[in-house]
Amino acid sequence: MNLKAYLAERRELVDAALDRMLPADEAGGDILKAMRYSLFAGGKRVRPILCLAACEAVGGGLEDAMFCACALEMVHTYSLVHDDLPAMDDDDFRRGVPTNHKVFGEGMAVLAGDGLLTQAMVLLSDADRGEGLDPARVLRAARAVMRAAGYEGMVGGQAADLAGENAEPDLALVQFIHAMKTGALITASARSGAILGGADEKGEEAMVRYGRRVGLAFQIADDLLDLTGDSRLLGKDTGMDEARGKMTYPGVAGPAAARETGLRLVEEAAQSLEHLGEPAEPLILIARYIMERTN
Amino acid sequence: MNLKAYLAERRELVDAALDRMLPADEAGGDILKAMRYSLFAGGKRVRPILCLAACEAVGGGLEDAMFCACALEMVHTYSLVHDDLPAMDDDDFRRGVPTNHKVFGEGMAVLAGDGLLTQAMVLLSDADRGEGLDPARVLRAARAVMRAAGYEGMVGGQAADLAGENAEPDLALVQFIHAMKTGALITASARSGAILGGADEKGEEAMVRYGRRVGLAFQIADDLLDLTGDSRLLGKDTGMDEARGKMTYPGVAGPAAARETGLRLVEEAAQSLEHLGEPAEPLILIARYIMERTN
Repeated sequence: MNLKAYLAERRELVDAALDRMLPADEAGGDILKAMRYSLFAGGKRVRPILCLAACEAVGGGLEDAMFCACALEMVHTYSLVHDDLPAMDDDDFRRGVPTNHKVFGEGMAVLAGDGLLTQAMVLLSDADRGEGLDPARVLRAARAVMRAAGYEGMVGGQAADLAGENAEPDLALVQFIHAMKTGALITASARSGAILGGADEKGEEAMVRYGRRVGLAFQIADDLLDLTGDSRLLGKDTGMDEARGKMTYPGVAGPAAARETGLRLVEEAAQSLEHLGEPAEPLILIARYIMERTN
Repeated sequence: MNLKAYLAERRELVDAALDRMLPADEAGGDILKAMRYSLFAGGKRVRPILCLAACEAVGGGLEDAMFCACALEMVHTYSLVHDDLPAMDDDDFRRGVPTNHKVFGEGMAVLAGDGLLTQAMVLLSDADRGEGLDPARVLRAARAVMRAAGYEGMVGGQAADLAGENAEPDLALVQFIHAMKTGALITASARSGAILGGADEKGEEAMVRYGRRVGLAFQIADDLLDLTGDSRLLGKDTGMDEARGKMTYPGVAGPAAARETGLRLVEEAAQSLEHLGEPAEPLILIARYIMERTN
């Protein structure tokens, strides 16, 4: 299969679904404009695509997981909007365009993030969206996403990251922060897709193993790009982690060792899904593509 | 019945449940400390108490709604933490103690709010918490809470409020903002309690009618207290709305007309539950108590 074409097609499907689930509305005022501004600012839709692919890999259909895929992208986008705030990373550009608070002001950016996070939960609690979906299964998927997003996951990782700025580099801490900050939501993307696709416990566990490794590799790749990438190609400032004294895996272990670790992780991720055969092919190719980006 | 004793007893029950649902943990770091700091900063637990009382008024038990009651308080607390931020209302004190960002810093306060909102969703998506609860009913309650919290409710109201600072006073706009900013979550408190208590559609609608009126009265009472209250008794600065040029109902219509409207609303709220008889007595007394606070 052609991964590039697959990703482009899936991204279009997700974009269209997001537009249906958070439609433009003049009466929605600045808050809806601010929410949509960041939601449609050119994201790659990695988490929704993982969720949909995981659902299909275990035998589910696209529509079983689309509401959850959209919720995941809203959670991810909210975290970027809040992360970019002056009180956090203080970034002016994201995905090649001015950050939310640069356009709408700081207060509205806080609220836009809040609105996106809440709307994610509105989608996840819509019992009617997935026709024929078992409500208990919807609750399990929602819980997997929200635990991953909260203080035991993404929010906790952001907080540890914030507290760790300018601290002494420590590899264990770096890995811990990675796992919470980026890994948890990526893992939840694959996991929730598998739940909604009807996976049994073993199937869910295999997807969690896949997700953990992919999540770590993803953060390593992002940090490598920040260290060595071209800001014009990436659409955001590079070298920012170093300038802020932030601990990153490549910063602590060096770029070569980081790349090696990333490559090992994506191979392990691929192995954990081999038993699923052809339906898991997109997930396996996506895992390998993560590190190819850094070449 | 003795309302003061009832409220004190319910508040203790809610406090104990909140402590179980977000337990202190040294390993939780600053983020958990910051979340708990605001959650246990002396809230009156109005929304949880309404939720539990609504559940009981339609024949449910306390434990059917306790997870939702706690989620409502987390949603309410997160909104206060974000509201107090320098980019929003820029308040230094809340409930008599320094605001979250004054203690933990701005970045951590943003994350503490995010963490509380997300944890609310974790609670609401816990299919196992209410033993014997129908998962479809849990989803309906979760959805009612989250729609009320989002851009069509509380977040939307905050955004309209932010955009309306220093605008010309306009009574229709003031009422609209009230309804979204405070009313929506209060309505959802009564509504979700009724859903979890097993109310049919008519029972749910009656609770929505009650909640809308109580919510409006609640905001009017709060604004009256800001206009005329004693900052030492309230534990927060008073006269702040006026100083900021914010539109409030008493500010636009005058305190006397505002009080009259509030009194009419709580009587209408009481009437909408009369058919439920004695189990609804707490809800009716709570409605009346809202305006008594302003005497």
